[in-house]
Amino acid sequence: MWHYDAPLREMRFVIEDVLQAPAAWRSMPAFADLDMDTAAEVLAQAARFASEVLQPLNGPGDREGCRLVQGHVKTPAGFAQAWASFVEGGWPALACDPDVGGQGLPQLLNAALFEMLVSANHAWTMYPGLLHGAYETLLAHAEPALRERYLPKIVSGEWLAAMALTEPQAGSDLGLVRTKAAPRPDGSLAVTGSKIFISGGDHDLSENIVHLVLCRLPDAPAGPKGLSLALVPKFLPDGSRNAMVCDGLEHKMGIHGSATCAMRYDGAIGWLVGEPNRGLAAMFVMMNAARLHVGLQGLGHLEMAAQNARRYALERLQMRAVVRPPGASAAADPIARHPAMRRSLRSLQAVAEGLRVVAYQAAMWLDEAHRHPDAGQREQAFARAAFLTPVVKAFATHWGFQGASEALQVFGGYGYVREFGIEQTLRDSRIALVYEGTNEIQAIDLLLRKTLADGGAAFERWLDELAPAATAHDAFGSALSDQLAAARAALGSLRQAQPDDPEAPWRVADDFLMGVGHLLLAWAWARIATAARRCQDDAAWAAERESLARHGVAWVLPQARVHWHRVSAAAPLDEVRA
Amino acid sequence: MWHYDAPLREMRFVIEDVLQAPAAWRSMPAFADLDMDTAAEVLAQAARFASEVLQPLNGPGDREGCRLVQGHVKTPAGFAQAWASFVEGGWPALACDPDVGGQGLPQLLNAALFEMLVSANHAWTMYPGLLHGAYETLLAHAEPALRERYLPKIVSGEWLAAMALTEPQAGSDLGLVRTKAAPRPDGSLAVTGSKIFISGGDHDLSENIVHLVLCRLPDAPAGPKGLSLALVPKFLPDGSRNAMVCDGLEHKMGIHGSATCAMRYDGAIGWLVGEPNRGLAAMFVMMNAARLHVGLQGLGHLEMAAQNARRYALERLQMRAVVRPPGASAAADPIARHPAMRRSLRSLQAVAEGLRVVAYQAAMWLDEAHRHPDAGQREQAFARAAFLTPVVKAFATHWGFQGASEALQVFGGYGYVREFGIEQTLRDSRIALVYEGTNEIQAIDLLLRKTLADGGAAFERWLDELAPAATAHDAFGSALSDQLAAARAALGSLRQAQPDDPEAPWRVADDFLMGVGHLLLAWAWARIATAARRCQDDAAWAAERESLARHGVAWVLPQARVHWHRVSAAAPLDEVRA
Repeated sequence: MWHYDAPLREMRFVIEDVLQAPAAWRSMPAFADLDMDTAAEVLAQAARFASEVLQPLNGPGDREGCRLVQGHVKTPAGFAQAWASFVEGGWPALACDPDVGGQGLPQLLNAALFEMLVSANHAWTMYPGLLHGAYETLLAHAEPALRERYLPKIVSGEWLAAMALTEPQAGSDLGLVRTKAAPRPDGSLAVTGSKIFISGGDHDLSENIVHLVLCRLPDAPAGPKGLSLALVPKFLPDGSRNAMVCDGLEHKMGIHGSATCAMRYDGAIGWLVGEPNRGLAAMFVMMNAARLHVGLQGLGHLEMAAQNARRYALERLQMRAVVRPPGASAAADPIARHPAMRRSLRSLQAVAEGLRVVAYQAAMWLDEAHRHPDAGQREQAFARAAFLTPVVKAFATHWGFQGASEALQVFGGYGYVREFGIEQTLRDSRIALVYEGTNEIQAIDLLLRKTLADGGAAFERWLDELAPAATAHDAFGSALSDQLAAARAALGSLRQAQPDDPEAPWRVADDFLMGVGHLLLAWAWARIATAARRCQDDAAWAAERESLARHGVAWVLPQARVHWHRVSAAAPLDEVRA
Repeated sequence: MWHYDAPLREMRFVIEDVLQAPAAWRSMPAFADLDMDTAAEVLAQAARFASEVLQPLNGPGDREGCRLVQGHVKTPAGFAQAWASFVEGGWPALACDPDVGGQGLPQLLNAALFEMLVSANHAWTMYPGLLHGAYETLLAHAEPALRERYLPKIVSGEWLAAMALTEPQAGSDLGLVRTKAAPRPDGSLAVTGSKIFISGGDHDLSENIVHLVLCRLPDAPAGPKGLSLALVPKFLPDGSRNAMVCDGLEHKMGIHGSATCAMRYDGAIGWLVGEPNRGLAAMFVMMNAARLHVGLQGLGHLEMAAQNARRYALERLQMRAVVRPPGASAAADPIARHPAMRRSLRSLQAVAEGLRVVAYQAAMWLDEAHRHPDAGQREQAFARAAFLTPVVKAFATHWGFQGASEALQVFGGYGYVREFGIEQTLRDSRIALVYEGTNEIQAIDLLLRKTLADGGAAFERWLDELAPAATAHDAFGSALSDQLAAARAALGSLRQAQPDDPEAPWRVADDFLMGVGHLLLAWAWARIATAARRCQDDAAWAAERESLARHGVAWVLPQARVHWHRVSAAAPLDEVRA
């Protein structure tokens, strides 16, 4: 019943035909040896791991959950063994630098890998989810001795990592963090404080756990400019247990198999990573990758929900359809024939295929930002990815959750029942709209920090770069042209409003992000249609890609109107009263 | 933290000032003795029961859930005692006919009562949720002897009721029901079959449970026209246990305290209710009330989510707002000041206040349909309510769930954690989009059965009746005029499309219903604004009602554009492929 068929063919189509990544790889020495067949073989292996090892642990892991037993976190049955086999397969090192033991493959393939892991088992995927972020932070900011001690074990996956940021009074506002770090004579730090919502703060998957803890040195300035980052391992180099303990596990709506820890550091020994008071800067290195990663969670959930709902709807017989299959005489048709279900199922599939293009494009730009031999190209790719990242994070997670809810509806009453799987997807998918910067924070990042800070100039250049996909004289071309025009008009009206009404952009940032999300879908669908027309080997399969893209333009894209309208109106907003 | 303040003042405002129900009561002999102060006192007592008895059982009931112990369902601690005190308070009889022991109060007050019960504890409210439907069915269709035996106990709440419709192969399509009823020599029936998703099929709240079972007599025609309705009690009149058993309980996403039973009837003794093969007709009696009831669940969840998120946001301090309160100097402001949160919180509140008008109006029209002395008025009220019912069911439950999700976002990471309450609201609220006819079925009911069957004539008359609220020359008047025009245009385009494309309305029925839902909000907000301007006693409080309605017009209503656009486009829809 509930199972995962990795969309390997669709993934290859996006990577090879839509994004034309193999040509880009050839222009980057780091990936010059990689070809599409090799990449496809890597993804096929990942798909087997996701379907055969991870997915069967998903439902049982949800029911068993994590437990805190005498101060130690016990993960659900099978989680630790799955981690061991993931490490054995070399997966943690996939996109790490060969200089430090990595396989040096593109982030693009890592993105496809993580989409599959999340589709199969979000809770389990939380454990490696922060590994790459920790890797990047240490690679860029740790002193050589620290880096040598910790980085290889993180690259191999022998040790896992945790990011310890949030405190009860400091959620979205990290400037309110209070955890203290006191210098010790040997140059290390004694870290003291309480953290909450620490994913993988403790568990039984790896021997050691490397915490990156946001804290304050003595006499640090108040607010975000007084934050430092410390590496605090569960076990110290001499093998002794560090003075840190998991105080409790959160009882969450979903991802029960992921240990969400309250951590207490009682003078735990750690080492500074990066400059004093520059802890946020050290963390920003990993921000784009981490937010893209959360966006991929949205895509993974949407794909899983859509494919399972589709399978169910093709089998479940209820009522005769208004237009029946030729020759139908049974008492009932598959519900997939009923117009309401058809619309839902095709919308979910169209959005999943469009979002995959957008999310993988972000990963590909990150690859170019890091690995392109030309500095100008690196800079341009970084700027492109910077716009895409908050949109992928917020828009894809929005769709992961909404798509799960639409898919649940396809299952009717069974959708509400545990055994059918979809209700877990709905519960698991909800967290992704919150963590790694709430979706509202992403919207502010996109509109206030990245777009309006320079009056919209860079954003408009970015729109110009998307425009070539709109040149076709067809539904796709005109849909994207409309979106580009709407985005420019919305930006223009905000520029006009802002001087007299500085709050205006803050009121409509969410709509601006949603508008841009739809614009990116229009862009993706146009590119899918173009690529599909080039495909010669299986015309029916390619035509279905174009047909789904066309469905998206007709049925999903109209939603953009509301968002652009609200941005342009930027209506006033009264106070909330008790 | 998480608690329930019944919005008694807002309820009274809707009943007294917006709907002007007391004047309507005076025109109906059944309610001629009722005045607003008496009604308000009834609601105040109900509010105390909801806040003080039910709400404290909500979280614990979710965690404990129901258990099946040696064939008997055990409900969570406190549920049975709460039921006993509900019965003692005479609440089950509130809107029942005094001739059979009821209190004879309007459905309108029953609607307010059920909004409160659901806000406080949806799972518990499932047990009395079907009581009124069983009451109406028996009142209208049972033979006198059967009615006399069962009705008084149902009116008093001494016995509870269950509706046994669904079977594994027969969900939305009741025509596929297979349960058999064999006549016995004494005129009773022997009922044999399996049912699933039977809410309150077994429990420990009442001594006896009266099942209404959809079944087939021998030689009944296939399909929905061969269905009969049988009354099958858990305990027979001689005190012996009937041959029916709860086989299992569903493990659901939410409403864990509600026993969702798989039932097996092994030649259980029952009695026909209504005519043979006319079981669906007998059930339709209760359909409007039952669907309105589910719509009230959506309203109850939305109210609970909105008020708790508002309280939290007024206390939680994170970051400085872009426009700070005068003289603010603290490191952070209440998040209720941040524009994204303000928009969300005020939208939820505006929609809750608008939906309350719409849902209570439906209840008031049902009162007039049953109790008005003039037959023409009864008929007109029934026709009005018939349009409103599927919209209230689907649109309010849509908002209950979406509102819970928006409210969860206000709580940030805490929203995902059990102790903060909102995640349970999200889980509990989701079922209401599915049961009592999925929201897609409601849309088909509204557009295909009720609107297009007569070419839209009755629907247009209904729109004409809503139009007087649009005469003000202000934002409210023009918003409602726009909605009415959009609805007429959408209907016109469907009438034009249908002859050549009979499937067209089926493809856009969901959008049509959502469009009408927004139209009704525009209507409600216009009426709220008018009523608020009439209020003299607390100008600030009344101005806040109008301000919220204005917010709804500016921020929520634009969504209607998408729905009307999709209806008019009625774009084609390809097949779903495996």
